[in-house]
Amino acid sequence: MAGRLIGVGLGPGDPELLTVKAVRVIAECPVIAYFSKTGRRGNARTIADRWIPATAEELPLGYPVTTEIPFDHPDYTAILAAFYEEAAERLAGRLRRGLDVALLAEGDPLFYGSFMHLFERLKAEFETCIVPGVTGMAGCAASASAPMTWGDDVLTVLPGTLPFEALVQRLKTSDSAVVMKLGQNFDKVREAFAEAGLLERALYVERGTMPNEKILPLADKTDGDAPYFSLILLPGRGRRP
Amino acid sequence: MAGRLIGVGLGPGDPELLTVKAVRVIAECPVIAYFSKTGRRGNARTIADRWIPATAEELPLGYPVTTEIPFDHPDYTAILAAFYEEAAERLAGRLRRGLDVALLAEGDPLFYGSFMHLFERLKAEFETCIVPGVTGMAGCAASASAPMTWGDDVLTVLPGTLPFEALVQRLKTSDSAVVMKLGQNFDKVREAFAEAGLLERALYVERGTMPNEKILPLADKTDGDAPYFSLILLPGRGRRP
Repeated sequence: MAGRLIGVGLGPGDPELLTVKAVRVIAECPVIAYFSKTGRRGNARTIADRWIPATAEELPLGYPVTTEIPFDHPDYTAILAAFYEEAAERLAGRLRRGLDVALLAEGDPLFYGSFMHLFERLKAEFETCIVPGVTGMAGCAASASAPMTWGDDVLTVLPGTLPFEALVQRLKTSDSAVVMKLGQNFDKVREAFAEAGLLERALYVERGTMPNEKILPLADKTDGDAPYFSLILLPGRGRRP
Repeated sequence: MAGRLIGVGLGPGDPELLTVKAVRVIAECPVIAYFSKTGRRGNARTIADRWIPATAEELPLGYPVTTEIPFDHPDYTAILAAFYEEAAERLAGRLRRGLDVALLAEGDPLFYGSFMHLFERLKAEFETCIVPGVTGMAGCAASASAPMTWGDDVLTVLPGTLPFEALVQRLKTSDSAVVMKLGQNFDKVREAFAEAGLLERALYVERGTMPNEKILPLADKTDGDAPYFSLILLPGRGRRP
């Protein structure tokens, strides 16, 4: 009998923010797979560190590129697709031998993540299961003590990769918003908040729930450098009896 | 020294989807408070059941009304505001005696929930802390094995309480969407999906991650009855190398 592919959400970064189920699944699975940049340990492996048994087989899946090639470059899709194909084959090898494989995912497995690319390639052949996780945005809102949505507030989650005009338009029509994938897009995103007249209401959160977390008004974050674990929160102001 | 108010996210319903931190905080806090409908045990208390020590003081906060009065009725705000004031005072009594109080919240404490109403009333006087949780939408997406956002997908979270036209407009301009607060709004929301041409892509999920969960295409959910734990998912179709 073939093994099961289990997507395990790791939450926003604090190892205590894995769910009880995620901890159990990691303890029980003979194979633990995770993405990382080639040659590095990777964020997922670091978050899950204390929960991975020494006896598990670890399967690091090393990205050939992350941000060195822009995602709209013609080579990007081809390189990534080949990488996902090969990674899916490595997992399939274990699954066919009857081993359950836990594939770790920062945050939640089904919101913007690499897990889904392997899930789509493997779900027809193998049984799958998803353990949902605390999203980065929930973790960052908690760290910032920022209530995000009230009453009838509409929440919009925006990737910072969107064009400037699209960001401005979306922000203007949102009661509450979260902008992910800042990185090299930070200056553009901050300018979009300013253009939408929302700079004063927004918060910048870096490494939320982790050591050295940093929370400051977006207006005060002027140096344009935003790491992988960072996002911008625009808390809502809806109905409050 | 006064106690701390701790907002504890319980996740989407499966008791194993509390975080390790939530379980620890519940085990350590001398006072466990939770909202419920007066005279009932309540969803939060039910989800957390196995984690609450017999020695804890339990503080049920019974809503005087839930859906008996529409939220735009003039009495609604006054009744709810008085209830939140009184509930905040009950918590403040324990906090002033130096007791830490865990206030339980289904899903995540800072996304559409009653926790925030007490948090706003108590945060000036008392130290506070938030333990983020798995949201209902992440839990339901996991139960449905539905990848929600890919690449540059914009995700919109909509309360079903919005007017029909607003729902249609928002759905038409979203790559991916979640509609919460269905209840008596179900028929209107379903009609909005149809009007936006999205009925065939949407999923209806009831009691996701819980026993008796129900997942079906929204097109097949024709009987207009939607309980508290239900929502509609519109999975995105963004970039997939």
